[in-house]
Amino acid sequence: VEEADDKQTADFINDLTAAEIARLLSAFPPKERVALWALITPENRGHVLVASSDNIREQLLSQMGAKAVLRICRTLSSSDMVWILSVVNDTIAEAVTLALDNEQREQVQSVLAYDEDQVGRYMNLDTVTIRADVRLEVIQRYLRISGGLKHGNHDLMVVDIDGVLVGTLNVIDLLNGEQSAQVSEYMNEPQSIFDTASVDELMVYSRAAHLNFVPVVDGEGVLLGQINAEDINELSIERAEATMMNMAGIGENSELFSGIRSGVQNRSTWLGINLITAFLATWVIGQFEEVLAQVVALAILMPVVASMGGIAGSQTLAITVRGLAMGQIVGSNRSWLLNKELWIGLINGLVWALVVALLAHLWFENSAISTVIGAAIWINMAIASIAGVIIPMVLHRMGQDPALSGAVILTTVSDVVGFMSFLGLATVFILQ
Amino acid sequence: VEEADDKQTADFINDLTAAEIARLLSAFPPKERVALWALITPENRGHVLVASSDNIREQLLSQMGAKAVLRICRTLSSSDMVWILSVVNDTIAEAVTLALDNEQREQVQSVLAYDEDQVGRYMNLDTVTIRADVRLEVIQRYLRISGGLKHGNHDLMVVDIDGVLVGTLNVIDLLNGEQSAQVSEYMNEPQSIFDTASVDELMVYSRAAHLNFVPVVDGEGVLLGQINAEDINELSIERAEATMMNMAGIGENSELFSGIRSGVQNRSTWLGINLITAFLATWVIGQFEEVLAQVVALAILMPVVASMGGIAGSQTLAITVRGLAMGQIVGSNRSWLLNKELWIGLINGLVWALVVALLAHLWFENSAISTVIGAAIWINMAIASIAGVIIPMVLHRMGQDPALSGAVILTTVSDVVGFMSFLGLATVFILQ
Repeated sequence: VEEADDKQTADFINDLTAAEIARLLSAFPPKERVALWALITPENRGHVLVASSDNIREQLLSQMGAKAVLRICRTLSSSDMVWILSVVNDTIAEAVTLALDNEQREQVQSVLAYDEDQVGRYMNLDTVTIRADVRLEVIQRYLRISGGLKHGNHDLMVVDIDGVLVGTLNVIDLLNGEQSAQVSEYMNEPQSIFDTASVDELMVYSRAAHLNFVPVVDGEGVLLGQINAEDINELSIERAEATMMNMAGIGENSELFSGIRSGVQNRSTWLGINLITAFLATWVIGQFEEVLAQVVALAILMPVVASMGGIAGSQTLAITVRGLAMGQIVGSNRSWLLNKELWIGLINGLVWALVVALLAHLWFENSAISTVIGAAIWINMAIASIAGVIIPMVLHRMGQDPALSGAVILTTVSDVVGFMSFLGLATVFILQ
Repeated sequence: VEEADDKQTADFINDLTAAEIARLLSAFPPKERVALWALITPENRGHVLVASSDNIREQLLSQMGAKAVLRICRTLSSSDMVWILSVVNDTIAEAVTLALDNEQREQVQSVLAYDEDQVGRYMNLDTVTIRADVRLEVIQRYLRISGGLKHGNHDLMVVDIDGVLVGTLNVIDLLNGEQSAQVSEYMNEPQSIFDTASVDELMVYSRAAHLNFVPVVDGEGVLLGQINAEDINELSIERAEATMMNMAGIGENSELFSGIRSGVQNRSTWLGINLITAFLATWVIGQFEEVLAQVVALAILMPVVASMGGIAGSQTLAITVRGLAMGQIVGSNRSWLLNKELWIGLINGLVWALVVALLAHLWFENSAISTVIGAAIWINMAIASIAGVIIPMVLHRMGQDPALSGAVILTTVSDVVGFMSFLGLATVFILQ
């Protein structure tokens, strides 16, 4: 509030690392965040924005003109600039790009040319390239003179005269190796990925092989850049969290400390979709008005059938979604999986059908009602279990995110099947 | 099937990395997995088990005696051995520990003494310690002779004569730095964590500061081990996925390719808990039998109220759980958050209350019913939104996992509040 206070706060903040400042900003409501932002020194601002989430980056950049954005970009590498330029509006992005020197402009434009879900968009351009026939001690001297090896980059790229990637040399081998030996004696086979591959493919690939970095090459094998451990780590946590958020029916970019307006907006889509499916279930119930009017116990017990099917299905959905993310689901094991889930659904369904039937009988002392609810639970849990495997597999094959729409489709299935089987059986066996 | 085939398969498998073999094993059903396991060479087995998930490690180790387990442990470092010894039964673990040499036995026992959620349990003991007053070139020679710096370890620990951690030296600085200068000129302040800290604390700490490794020290600051980037990465992905699984009502250790029996078991707990909450909701409905018997439209529309509240609540729950995992929720911003969520709930609730009331009116042409359902939706969505913030915060403060029981408590709240407000208002305003 007072100037002396501000000065002290500013000193405290600017002593933190960029990542720590970014986290601090994220824990403040939007208005206070802008006030804090004003205290951050110009040389810190760029790195803080790069370490921030998309939303916060957008919020803070939305208030700046081309000049301010350019000043921020000048403190960053080409790869980091991309994070800034992809969230500002096109006019500003163009103005900033034009003001860069030729090399940087080309680099930035080449990265921005990729789609947001392509590997090329995320690659780091600060690769250190070396030749296979050079001695380790020469490499060490070269690194010291050039200062090219940055923190967080633990691998040198070995390329041939055409720029084609032929291997990689880890810094640990560079340190431990016989210094008079050539690079070729210590280099590893490159496990690279194409620039046009999807981020999904990158995640499955790097996770399966526990890769700490992945060189990015074009169709001819020419080295374009590399994905570092830090990027892989961040992308995979973001992905896992996005899955969790999507399954809970909320956009993955929703922030805890966004304003009320954006909070209302980012929840509306799924509330709307949910309303449609809820009315679909309601319409199904409406078809059985007659039996509901006659036997009020059916209205009372109805939610149990839908809810048990819903849980059984969402359990299967969750492990299938994770299996897909890990690349575990491949051709030959699909039918084994389906078969297994059918059995689990049938066994669990039978067990819980008996329990529910017993409880319903103790309550209403009507064997027709207990039999009907037992049968409906069994049918619904078995079908929901299978749906929990089939729905995400089909969505995945269609190129959709299985977590995003999987949960809502599944709920619809378990509601409709549950109400239909329960009230349908009741109509046949109880309605007089 | 034929021997020649097996030989070829075995050669193919054993040429893969341990991580790749582990992934391959995870994509096979249990029976086929055991057949594949038999083809893996003894020297690969230990590393494959370490790279596998808990469940698979348990499955494969459950068939081995003490001798086989010891043979596997002999190929591993002390830190890796812990992964094996913590899933075999106590008799075997003891027999194996006794057969180790003194140094290894002490190391293994010291790590096994920590709880499963303590940082000490996950620390790597292969630290490379150096002194601050040594020249970089001497360090380089020492590393080459000792071969102590392993792949994946990019930081040397600088300790004083008492073993107290005084700094860390990154390999990039070791390479780029002036070789005749002393370590002290290039070392960083250590950002360490106590051995008795929880894994949760480690995650929040390393994520907030974007740390790539964390030294582990005891209460006196003496270096005990370190957590490497790979471990941090794996722990954080596991955590994010566990949250997703827990919110879907299934244990985090559930595997896609587990057998039918364990599949039935690991889903039963939550099905049982869900049944209790479903019957609680049902009991609430049962209290309004009279009005339900008189106005069948109430039974038909009932699920819409519960479902809209459920989605609104689970959206808030998901972003609160993520905020807690990121350490964003701290004292001062709690009330701001609660206030914000209340407003979002009130605004969204009002919008959807009007939509539902209109739809209900078009269907049943009864203004009492439309008014009652609108009011109930508004009440339920507002309360569910607040519950979505309060429930995980309280669970977190109680030291519980907010994702695990949060979803089920929230569903109970939105069901009970939804049915009670809808049928209660109907009893007051519609019942004749």
